[in-house]
Amino acid sequence: MSRIEDAQWAEPLNALLRAWAQTAAARDKAGGTAFHERRLLRDSGLLRLSVPEQYGGDGADWSTTLDVVRRMAQVDSSLAHLFAFHHLQLATIRLFGNDAQIRRWHTGTIEQRWFWGNALNPLDKSTRALPDAAGSYLFDGRKSFCSGARDSDQLLASAFDADGRLLIGVTPTTRAGITVLDDWDNMGQRQTDSGTVVFDRVPIAGDELLLQPGPLSSPFASLRPLLAQSILCHVYLGIGEGALQAARDATLAQTRPWIASSAGRPADDPYVLAHYGDHWVALEGARALVERAMHAFDRAWQRGLALTESERGEVAVAVATSKVAAARAGLDVAHRMFEVTGARSTTAALRLDRFWRNVRVHTLHDPIDYKVRELGDWALNGRIPKPSFYS
Amino acid sequence: MSRIEDAQWAEPLNALLRAWAQTAAARDKAGGTAFHERRLLRDSGLLRLSVPEQYGGDGADWSTTLDVVRRMAQVDSSLAHLFAFHHLQLATIRLFGNDAQIRRWHTGTIEQRWFWGNALNPLDKSTRALPDAAGSYLFDGRKSFCSGARDSDQLLASAFDADGRLLIGVTPTTRAGITVLDDWDNMGQRQTDSGTVVFDRVPIAGDELLLQPGPLSSPFASLRPLLAQSILCHVYLGIGEGALQAARDATLAQTRPWIASSAGRPADDPYVLAHYGDHWVALEGARALVERAMHAFDRAWQRGLALTESERGEVAVAVATSKVAAARAGLDVAHRMFEVTGARSTTAALRLDRFWRNVRVHTLHDPIDYKVRELGDWALNGRIPKPSFYS
Amino acid sequence: MSRIEDAQWAEPLNALLRAWAQTAAARDKAGGTAFHERRLLRDSGLLRLSVPEQYGGDGADWSTTLDVVRRMAQVDSSLAHLFAFHHLQLATIRLFGNDAQIRRWHTGTIEQRWFWGNALNPLDKSTRALPDAAGSYLFDGRKSFCSGARDSDQLLASAFDADGRLLIGVTPTTRAGITVLDDWDNMGQRQTDSGTVVFDRVPIAGDELLLQPGPLSSPFASLRPLLAQSILCHVYLGIGEGALQAARDATLAQTRPWIASSAGRPADDPYVLAHYGDHWVALEGARALVERAMHAFDRAWQRGLALTESERGEVAVAVATSKVAAARAGLDVAHRMFEVTGARSTTAALRLDRFWRNVRVHTLHDPIDYKVRELGDWALNGRIPKPSFYS
Amino acid sequence: MSRIEDAQWAEPLNALLRAWAQTAAARDKAGGTAFHERRLLRDSGLLRLSVPEQYGGDGADWSTTLDVVRRMAQVDSSLAHLFAFHHLQLATIRLFGNDAQIRRWHTGTIEQRWFWGNALNPLDKSTRALPDAAGSYLFDGRKSFCSGARDSDQLLASAFDADGRLLIGVTPTTRAGITVLDDWDNMGQRQTDSGTVVFDRVPIAGDELLLQPGPLSSPFASLRPLLAQSILCHVYLGIGEGALQAARDATLAQTRPWIASSAGRPADDPYVLAHYGDHWVALEGARALVERAMHAFDRAWQRGLALTESERGEVAVAVATSKVAAARAGLDVAHRMFEVTGARSTTAALRLDRFWRNVRVHTLHDPIDYKVRELGDWALNGRIPKPSFYS
Repeated sequence: MSRIEDAQWAEPLNALLRAWAQTAAARDKAGGTAFHERRLLRDSGLLRLSVPEQYGGDGADWSTTLDVVRRMAQVDSSLAHLFAFHHLQLATIRLFGNDAQIRRWHTGTIEQRWFWGNALNPLDKSTRALPDAAGSYLFDGRKSFCSGARDSDQLLASAFDADGRLLIGVTPTTRAGITVLDDWDNMGQRQTDSGTVVFDRVPIAGDELLLQPGPLSSPFASLRPLLAQSILCHVYLGIGEGALQAARDATLAQTRPWIASSAGRPADDPYVLAHYGDHWVALEGARALVERAMHAFDRAWQRGLALTESERGEVAVAVATSKVAAARAGLDVAHRMFEVTGARSTTAALRLDRFWRNVRVHTLHDPIDYKVRELGDWALNGRIPKPSFYS
Repeated sequence: MSRIEDAQWAEPLNALLRAWAQTAAARDKAGGTAFHERRLLRDSGLLRLSVPEQYGGDGADWSTTLDVVRRMAQVDSSLAHLFAFHHLQLATIRLFGNDAQIRRWHTGTIEQRWFWGNALNPLDKSTRALPDAAGSYLFDGRKSFCSGARDSDQLLASAFDADGRLLIGVTPTTRAGITVLDDWDNMGQRQTDSGTVVFDRVPIAGDELLLQPGPLSSPFASLRPLLAQSILCHVYLGIGEGALQAARDATLAQTRPWIASSAGRPADDPYVLAHYGDHWVALEGARALVERAMHAFDRAWQRGLALTESERGEVAVAVATSKVAAARAGLDVAHRMFEVTGARSTTAALRLDRFWRNVRVHTLHDPIDYKVRELGDWALNGRIPKPSFYS
Repeated sequence: MSRIEDAQWAEPLNALLRAWAQTAAARDKAGGTAFHERRLLRDSGLLRLSVPEQYGGDGADWSTTLDVVRRMAQVDSSLAHLFAFHHLQLATIRLFGNDAQIRRWHTGTIEQRWFWGNALNPLDKSTRALPDAAGSYLFDGRKSFCSGARDSDQLLASAFDADGRLLIGVTPTTRAGITVLDDWDNMGQRQTDSGTVVFDRVPIAGDELLLQPGPLSSPFASLRPLLAQSILCHVYLGIGEGALQAARDATLAQTRPWIASSAGRPADDPYVLAHYGDHWVALEGARALVERAMHAFDRAWQRGLALTESERGEVAVAVATSKVAAARAGLDVAHRMFEVTGARSTTAALRLDRFWRNVRVHTLHDPIDYKVRELGDWALNGRIPKPSFYS
Repeated sequence: MSRIEDAQWAEPLNALLRAWAQTAAARDKAGGTAFHERRLLRDSGLLRLSVPEQYGGDGADWSTTLDVVRRMAQVDSSLAHLFAFHHLQLATIRLFGNDAQIRRWHTGTIEQRWFWGNALNPLDKSTRALPDAAGSYLFDGRKSFCSGARDSDQLLASAFDADGRLLIGVTPTTRAGITVLDDWDNMGQRQTDSGTVVFDRVPIAGDELLLQPGPLSSPFASLRPLLAQSILCHVYLGIGEGALQAARDATLAQTRPWIASSAGRPADDPYVLAHYGDHWVALEGARALVERAMHAFDRAWQRGLALTESERGEVAVAVATSKVAAARAGLDVAHRMFEVTGARSTTAALRLDRFWRNVRVHTLHDPIDYKVRELGDWALNGRIPKPSFYS
């Protein structure tokens, strides 16, 4: 996880993180859309990070791109999520679309400096795809959990046709009939703008639909959910790391150990050290698993359409393993950090509870219990996870 | 824990809880002083609950009084804390003061309908007691974590004299030189008003000081910290119970099980049931220990000055045991409840995170790690906890 | 849990426990049938403890009888199990049999000093009940997990008739056709003789069958599995308590703290104390729940046939709760005790691993996971456990 | 962890593991010295695995050598320990001895097919080094926990001189005055022969003492305890993996799910799968950390005397992290495996409890609590572990 330092975008990234950090607590309180910080992100050039060099991007591999996500999440897990989902939309086009589509939207992303938003939630079946002219559709209905749709330039949107088939289309966010509501107000991940997009008979042309080869059409195309899950891993891990750093600052700032402690300072208290040791082991374990999963993912990505079902299955196992570990570590650190920071660290001015609220909300994306079950089925029965939008 | 239903104040209590519940989430958002709800509490008559009958109170024992605290905490743990601390101040007078003082302030409480506030925090040594006229002092300095001082009528305040001796005095909140700041803004327990009280050379007369028999002057007087700790237990347990009830409402309202679940409804999902089973065992275990500790406490209270060190020590062990169990159960339920309520339950409209923020903050009152250590010393070495303001 | 000290059988019990303790480790190594210790038990008079006074027994309630089981399990959980199952067989007759049967076998138990064994395992369906003369049957087949059948005088045995109905019969162990195999060799609970009984067309007369009112025929009769489960609770708790006592002896005998410890002796090491504190909280919580469940059980038992389904359901919840807590506490103490006793305590001479092996084996009687699920169904859906031989 | 398959010694290793596996349960019961299996190990050629090629060995790096230890531990953790300690003694000579000593004892190991034993336990201070002729000493006293001394050819032994300085010497096991007692009888790791060696004024010549550069004389020499700790990691992990494999065999052999399960077979039960998923995550996390630590260790080893304190410190952190994770994973799998294997798997014939007994005993080598504390000191205060024989 160390290739970042040498990259040309290392300093823009660090500048961005410093800027975000200054306002992270205040923006957590305010919620809403982080227009200014999104602009800083656009200006940083990092929106082209994963775009292949042939289209003018930086061509970073996924290990690198998601390592940037992790670093962002240490500081601001909402913005990390939006950055990651921008790249996920582009990856989706590469996995589900044809060459012309890939070229069109990647070139546009570089030339027009597009920021992509998400209106894809396949669990929400209330948006329908009504047949229009030959091969075209009208998308109609409401879509929930549309992270990053606000202030976006392009959207990936999904709808179900009369046969229950999932159709994924691409559209400028400004197209007539699209209304992006400002209705996200959540206990955590407060600036992901994961609200509702309303589609009022929005025309989607045939060449805007990702039909060739189409969603989950091959083991390679089925890497898409694994990329989405890997993003979650990095956000969870980043939150845990950010929480530990914040806890450390708070503990080291304390001067008076508990009255019953034999230590001269809180940072030498045996129980304080035990908590930090536990957190270190948990986070380091998650880091090792995430790193391992990403190496497998990058190798699988490079295999392209030659990727087999069982190869994809092993990547799925590695990603799921790292996700469970990262979720548990992030949750545990954010939950228990206060046992070493003391009562005064709970002042609303610090908003240290945001780490917990963020990881608590984000780990509900899909149930950890069922990821564990999937891994049990692998460990016991040797069954690889069946590809879906969550596995 | 069932004597409440038959009491004359059962219906006023239920009415109070219903009223508080309607605004609990909104007031958690707003923070600040709950003037209206404090007035409802005054009007309910429950401020006289633990006052002995000889002074015109209801003469409820501590099991009963704290069971009311627990029920309040299910709905609003800030107000539960304020109610409990009102009774704690009165108990402190009974334990540390002389007969005349006990009569004076208990009679006043009934006749003037006083609501007591707290300015006693013995860990904050920045308030000094300066010698004034014979036997009198001027309290001078700032005192932190003064729960319930705002909108109170009477205060129990502490200061340290030149020899480092802790002096506890009683004063009307309106006395000249006392300023109760409105500076409590915390991530949890947002309406406990646990802010700062400034004492600017506030005269405390000799007969306002609790010197006979004085703080922790006997095993009986040393029940005071055990009462304070027992209050914490009931608040933690109540929060856990409230969280479980809120989780239950959310789970039962869900209609769609996770896509990989074999259950027909979320409430029949095997992992959902496992979480509820775990929570039940934890809360029921805490309830049993709390009940057991309170029986021991009530018996010890009735023993009065005949109470021996070792008898007091066994109560201390029972209270500490119940505290560790209640804290862990409350924390665990509030942390994990979201795994059974699903992503939509994280909307800011419900503010379900308040259970976690409340119990997370309140369990930092004094470190659980050192309570566990105390219990280890008992279990291994047979040593009873040494009385202090936290043991 | 303190009525025992005053009872007339208190001293015989203590003598018995002392004798058992002296050989417990050696007999754990040897396995097989504890003929000598079983004889000491017969001689102690404790086999009549729960027998109602009208038949010449001591008439102890179940709280008291199982508290004896718990004390026995601290010392020797195999023998505790055999003692408990003797009383369980007699209780089964009281719950499933008619008045004449109850009188006959209880009177015999007192007069003939019978020790009852178990051949009832309802999960093992390989023993068939073949119709014989009118109302009589021949029991034929093998029955597994027959704790206490060896060296017993009377057996409760079960078989399934052609319609799959469970028939429970009573027979002297010496009846022709019965062979009690000496084939129990297990990693734990090594002297429970839970081996195989072979029935070779053993005649069971009509009046030896418990048909009136019959198995689980009423809420009252359905207390039988709750008594069996309560026995498990007491054995688990007793093992945990015995393990903690053994750990304590070992820790206190150590003189040299770990080289990195700041403590002067191991018993003052902060992490050692933390382990003991944890164990104390776990065991004390289980004790409180077990005590609470037994009070509910005793009350339900006294209600007799008036007991309603929902009353029985609440006892079932209380017993299940205490079982989960006792199993977890016992397992955890026995597993982790070595972290405070040090490497030298693992010598085979002490056989301290027997606590773990015993509780590990015994907690597999029926899956804890499904008990937790049952409790989740109660906590979430308000459903009481459906009576079966395990609920 | 995959270089093994291609090695020339891959097939001899597999043959050895197959042979050991056949008798592992029986030898766990018998205890004592595994003469036959030790001979198979000698014959396999694996005793020269880590010996540098310049002395005629296979020159395997430590990642590879310890990966063999892990595989052995899956089958027989006692023999894995003995194999590992053989190589540890040779590594000790390379780290603490001079060139002539290294050449002498490595060449001898290859030519004479020596099997090295351990008599080094630095915590046992009862063996004294009495001055003899110039530069020579007489080792006198008893040394405990001497794994692998029985049936060994050469010993590494330690003693303390009058100034309390630790002296480490090399001697043939057959030297006059050395008696290797057959007194190891433990609850686990039953064939490690970790008993007592008696030294009765055993002469150790000056050139048999490892004085140049001597114990822990440099960051490089201080890799010795890190190698010892890494061995422990691999044994713990191997035991966990072996336990999971044994559990898997048992679960898959079961045909009847629990009566309350909705699954058609035990291997599809939701709770069974959850256990396997948990175990997978724990073991996979430990594997990733162990692998990461070994890469760091191998790099550090190659640095030789150029290795700096802080570089060594980072390896120490990586090893400690992997040790805590491996110990916890191994303990947890071995403790909980029975919850998925069912009651019948506890038969003494299978001796599945040996995994727990082995990992339980071996994880007491030095306290995990203090490893966690060390890691806390690193995570919070940035302090690297101070080199000692345990850090």
